[in-house]
Amino acid sequence: MQDAWVAVDLGGTKIACALASLEGQWIASESAPTLSHEGPEAVLGRIAALIGDLAARHAVRPRAIGMGVPGLADLHRGVTRFLPNLPGQWRDVPAGPILAAHCGCPVFLLNDARMAALGELRHGHGVGARGMIFFTIGTGIGGGVVVDGQLQLGPLGAAGEIGHQTIIPEGPRCGCGNHGCLEALASGPAIAAEGVRLLAAGLAPHLHELTAGNPAAVNPRQMALAAEAGDELVREAILRAARYIAIGAANMVTAFHPDLVVLGGGVPAMGPILIDEVRAHLRERVRMFPADTVRVERSLLDDKAGLWGGVALARMRTQSA
Amino acid sequence: MQDAWVAVDLGGTKIACALASLEGQWIASESAPTLSHEGPEAVLGRIAALIGDLAARHAVRPRAIGMGVPGLADLHRGVTRFLPNLPGQWRDVPAGPILAAHCGCPVFLLNDARMAALGELRHGHGVGARGMIFFTIGTGIGGGVVVDGQLQLGPLGAAGEIGHQTIIPEGPRCGCGNHGCLEALASGPAIAAEGVRLLAAGLAPHLHELTAGNPAAVNPRQMALAAEAGDELVREAILRAARYIAIGAANMVTAFHPDLVVLGGGVPAMGPILIDEVRAHLRERVRMFPADTVRVERSLLDDKAGLWGGVALARMRTQSA
Repeated sequence: MQDAWVAVDLGGTKIACALASLEGQWIASESAPTLSHEGPEAVLGRIAALIGDLAARHAVRPRAIGMGVPGLADLHRGVTRFLPNLPGQWRDVPAGPILAAHCGCPVFLLNDARMAALGELRHGHGVGARGMIFFTIGTGIGGGVVVDGQLQLGPLGAAGEIGHQTIIPEGPRCGCGNHGCLEALASGPAIAAEGVRLLAAGLAPHLHELTAGNPAAVNPRQMALAAEAGDELVREAILRAARYIAIGAANMVTAFHPDLVVLGGGVPAMGPILIDEVRAHLRERVRMFPADTVRVERSLLDDKAGLWGGVALARMRTQSA
Repeated sequence: MQDAWVAVDLGGTKIACALASLEGQWIASESAPTLSHEGPEAVLGRIAALIGDLAARHAVRPRAIGMGVPGLADLHRGVTRFLPNLPGQWRDVPAGPILAAHCGCPVFLLNDARMAALGELRHGHGVGARGMIFFTIGTGIGGGVVVDGQLQLGPLGAAGEIGHQTIIPEGPRCGCGNHGCLEALASGPAIAAEGVRLLAAGLAPHLHELTAGNPAAVNPRQMALAAEAGDELVREAILRAARYIAIGAANMVTAFHPDLVVLGGGVPAMGPILIDEVRAHLRERVRMFPADTVRVERSLLDDKAGLWGGVALARMRTQSA
């Protein structure tokens, strides 16, 4: 039986799990509902069962596990610290050691956005890059910053929180407690809230048609369709969010002059309207050197970036141990 | 005759020059007017004469020269690219090779703000730091970013331009072409412009007294005195600038979680009113981890940071050659 790397992406609604060969070839993936309200022990047991199942089906033995968690964790001890989007008692849970005991191999934790950045760095657009700024734009805005080929973690694993840059000093309150963070202005829910506002005001006829007037059906993808169909104010709301993202990217580009900026997560999947405006507005904001020296790309790995990052994490931490 | 490192800080109004022993002990410094309108050849000749003089008086022989320039340069070739604050034809001048021919030793160029950051890193508050964010706040706002103990330069030597982060998206136009840059909001001239406005509106009685009503006499230091004497609106203008600086610092802290933030240049020398508010507001803005894990300090080397950086640059580049 051969050894394999295991990646786990622990999300608010679902657990995804993947296997890769020791050479880094993808073997298979599988997912299951998180059911976080059942508590950490149950969730970690379910992850272990999922891994065990997948490994048995593909006749491999887990060598090490890289697991992304939606929040902050003590990376050295494998203890979760603050997972705001997981119901249940997740503060100070030794998730790494517990899962390691279940699976009989080492477990390495990382913030899920940083893990996706690592995936993009090692297996996506970032291959060969010295510097990369990675945003994952979905329910929140997470990120990862790569300098000199290294993903930056900081002493508490919290470096890279570039969704919490202040973009509008007196802007809306963010979940983190600050005002006017990029996350509060351009995450999926922030964009959708603008769509709902326009819908309620009767200012978005195509969005109304697409969603049958149901505010709960409004999301960035529906808004992109409505904009394309001719809803000018919906279009402007999307472009405004894109410009906020461009400002956040430009601040980082001006500070680091990386090779590239990568946009991951569900929101950029709405279509070219977002990324085209991010590219255009970045050029307006970066004036200290030619902005066209920095590429702006949608994630190559898309919703697999996290799992690829888990593979890279397991491999990297095992080989440096 | 012993060898020595030479540092040169080429500024808009003055050239400063220093000698240090090969072990990094300060020997002496000297300065002269730049007279930039005479052109690069004349200025570089004057720098060479200043170095020759100083070296002769202290009986040392220049081993290598680290020179800071107010703008961007090709660091590999020693060619100036864009020095907006130096009158005369400074675009594409091989300043390094010309000075090297005069002095008979290698010359290494660096942006002046990055050179001051390097000085602070190697000889100031940054000693032992893994991560440091350095702002130099004067006529403009320059900077340097240190990650993993290394000053970041980027492919064009332009990384670290953290004075050109966007703080107010629709803010005043900056010299760089962007709108609402930190530099356009909190540099010495930007702060003084607020003081002049209050003076003209008759809203700053103490500032009026301190400057005899002369707008040309308004500067951040006079404004700090007026604020202390009771000019509330002047005080508010200073605090507002401090909060902009705090936002710029917080964006970088959130992205990198460095050990410390250092404020250099003439403006922070106005007194504790500025740095106290930067410290306080940084805590409001950084919410993803405890902001008190990051120290905020005034430059330890103050107006000598650049020259110390030149010594460090000459030493570092010679020893890595």
